[in-house]
Amino acid sequence: MRNIKLTIEYDGTSYKGWQIQQKRPEEIGTEKTIQGVIERVISGILQEEIRLIGAGRTDAGVHALGQVGNFKTKSKMPMAVMQRALNALLPKDIIIVDIEEAKPDFNSRFNARLKTYRYQILNRDYSTAFDRLYQNHVPYKLDAKLMAREARVLVGRRDFKSFQAADKKVRNSIRNIRRISVRKDGPIINIDLEANGFLYNMVRNIVGTLIEIGRGKLPPGSMKKILRVKDRTEAGPTAPAKGLCLLRVRY
Amino acid sequence: MRNIKLTIEYDGTSYKGWQIQQKRPEEIGTEKTIQGVIERVISGILQEEIRLIGAGRTDAGVHALGQVGNFKTKSKMPMAVMQRALNALLPKDIIIVDIEEAKPDFNSRFNARLKTYRYQILNRDYSTAFDRLYQNHVPYKLDAKLMAREARVLVGRRDFKSFQAADKKVRNSIRNIRRISVRKDGPIINIDLEANGFLYNMVRNIVGTLIEIGRGKLPPGSMKKILRVKDRTEAGPTAPAKGLCLLRVRY
Repeated sequence: MRNIKLTIEYDGTSYKGWQIQQKRPEEIGTEKTIQGVIERVISGILQEEIRLIGAGRTDAGVHALGQVGNFKTKSKMPMAVMQRALNALLPKDIIIVDIEEAKPDFNSRFNARLKTYRYQILNRDYSTAFDRLYQNHVPYKLDAKLMAREARVLVGRRDFKSFQAADKKVRNSIRNIRRISVRKDGPIINIDLEANGFLYNMVRNIVGTLIEIGRGKLPPGSMKKILRVKDRTEAGPTAPAKGLCLLRVRY
Repeated sequence: MRNIKLTIEYDGTSYKGWQIQQKRPEEIGTEKTIQGVIERVISGILQEEIRLIGAGRTDAGVHALGQVGNFKTKSKMPMAVMQRALNALLPKDIIIVDIEEAKPDFNSRFNARLKTYRYQILNRDYSTAFDRLYQNHVPYKLDAKLMAREARVLVGRRDFKSFQAADKKVRNSIRNIRRISVRKDGPIINIDLEANGFLYNMVRNIVGTLIEIGRGKLPPGSMKKILRVKDRTEAGPTAPAKGLCLLRVRY
């Protein structure tokens, strides 16, 4: 068996997220997911039932520039041929940007060391005609410097209980954020987060909180306080999915 | 009467171009144009029949970052209020980025001194999930340096007969290209053209010819020859609309 590693770019706008949903029988096949669409195309090309593992299970509407996936196959098809066949048959909003043969025990999910997400905010009065599906338009003035300062307390091994989705709690909510940056470039504010792993909705909940701080609805010092109380209700709202993009996964 | 100048950004993907089409009565209202949609929204806001003049009549599928338009109105509505109302009521793929009161005799079409168009090519094996509606994906290798060299002969006051649409000939096909640049930035090739005016399809025909030269289907020196023969059939095909964007108009 060969183990094939894919680097995948996608516009998540029209998908119910990465992962195939476990559904009641009558619902099976009604929800379009990135994983589902790619699995079906690969299985068709290789004439073999394949199972695709993904590094990050991105939500509905979340995008990726460098999602990583892997699958096992008996096929001997050359990599370049497989990539061309995939890109020819996949919908135009999913692209295989790289393909390579990995070691037999490589697992794109469990071997991921670092994942980097970017959240993009368009901060000006009016929206944009072009990147409106990839940016969260925030019309009120945000203080990016203050947001950057507040974000710093999140770096390190911390309990992110305050930022996990209320309905998807896990027992261990400790994660290690290696880097977080808030940078302003004209009307764009990019928030980059790099961690060994993220809780469900963690990035969007952190961003939602930073936006509340940046517009003055929460006072300076709030991030530190929210982190300490370990209570989701103290943090800001979940920022919209469309501003979020999985940039890369490191192994 | 006030004369209002608008700077307009739009994603032209779902429009039949800028201009309202002159149609047989039974077809009126069936084709969605940028001009038509904006006129209807302004007329609704101001409760007054208005007529919008545009600087450049972009084709179906062509985009704009800095289209300019103007209209006359009796309304005394403040500019900021009008801009907010417009952006609230316009579809999300049309944005009013700027609004100001112009001199009474300002005409966005006839007073335009310089228009700058950008044509964007994605030059690599695989496409992209994100900007696929704003870039022309060319999978075969292009020689951008050669294209830049060939493009130089187009600068100046020239007869662009070879590059005008076969079915939309005008008597005077002389135009003045002030600047043309071909720049490669990673997998992206940007072709910028600045002129006092353009013939119908001229930019797309020039780009189509440059692509043929860049991939080696036409030999070096072709641009000079094509310009000289004044024959549309000698030039390359019309490049797809989606790669083209009206960047700005100078007065």
